[in-house]
Amino acid sequence: MEEILVKAIQDEYPDDFAWCYGCGRLNEEGHHFRTGWQGKQTVTIYTPEQAHLALPGFVYGGLVASLIDCHGTGSAALTLHRKNGHEPGDGAEPPRFVTASLNVNFLKPTPHGVPLKAIGTVHEIHPKKFKVETEVYANDVLCARGEVVAVVMPSSFFK
Amino acid sequence: MEEILVKAIQDEYPDDFAWCYGCGRLNEEGHHFRTGWQGKQTVTIYTPEQAHLALPGFVYGGLVASLIDCHGTGSAALTLHRKNGHEPGDGAEPPRFVTASLNVNFLKPTPHGVPLKAIGTVHEIHPKKFKVETEVYANDVLCARGEVVAVVMPSSFFK
Repeated sequence: MEEILVKAIQDEYPDDFAWCYGCGRLNEEGHHFRTGWQGKQTVTIYTPEQAHLALPGFVYGGLVASLIDCHGTGSAALTLHRKNGHEPGDGAEPPRFVTASLNVNFLKPTPHGVPLKAIGTVHEIHPKKFKVETEVYANDVLCARGEVVAVVMPSSFFK
Repeated sequence: MEEILVKAIQDEYPDDFAWCYGCGRLNEEGHHFRTGWQGKQTVTIYTPEQAHLALPGFVYGGLVASLIDCHGTGSAALTLHRKNGHEPGDGAEPPRFVTASLNVNFLKPTPHGVPLKAIGTVHEIHPKKFKVETEVYANDVLCARGEVVAVVMPSSFFK
């Protein structure tokens, strides 16, 4: 049975910032990744769509990279939000992050047809910059390991 | 006017290996990235779809990562194919690569609504392993830099 997160940081982003193809709740064609706390770690669970193939039977690497990317920015936002005294669901608007760098090591072919679980450990680099180390599991087998450096959204994103 | 590649390595993959969400010509819902030679460098040109947003006006980072990923495996395949005496279009079946690692540095917000151009430089690490350094341009502005290590598809992908 697929686990479902009750409270995700992406549910709290203001509407203007909810259009991300990976994790924006308002992007009808997007993946709708949702990231929440699991103890002191963060988690995003996602079942790839039928078309998200590398080869028949295996998940497309770009999808795994996308999962790690949005899981990373979501995990950084959760962490700074908690540092500011807030949790998803308490009504406060969370900080919003963008990805500075994304690294993915593909350890095993990722099987298609099962939920993927990204588990993140967050490290503060400085108050506006976080490093998120992520492991992606399928059927409890570690398939990929990733690292995202996420920074608070810079003003260059606002026109 | 958008440039179009006449001959791409992905056009030559056997049908069994043409299902990749990023670059498989038979995956109806996929991106259909196509990679060819441009002198001694490789090139993939792709215009993101309307939904591929990070924020309104900017391209989703996971899409840029996907472009760098498939551009990398395609560039490695082009290189080994040429080393074996072949060019896309000569009827020979090209080698097929998978991604071992993917690194992306996002240098500037990538504007949405224009073609993206990935330009690759390929280095042989050993006969079955290549490193592809890629720059992604939008309107001739360098927006992201990536590196893919691609290896000849291992037997673990064949059931």
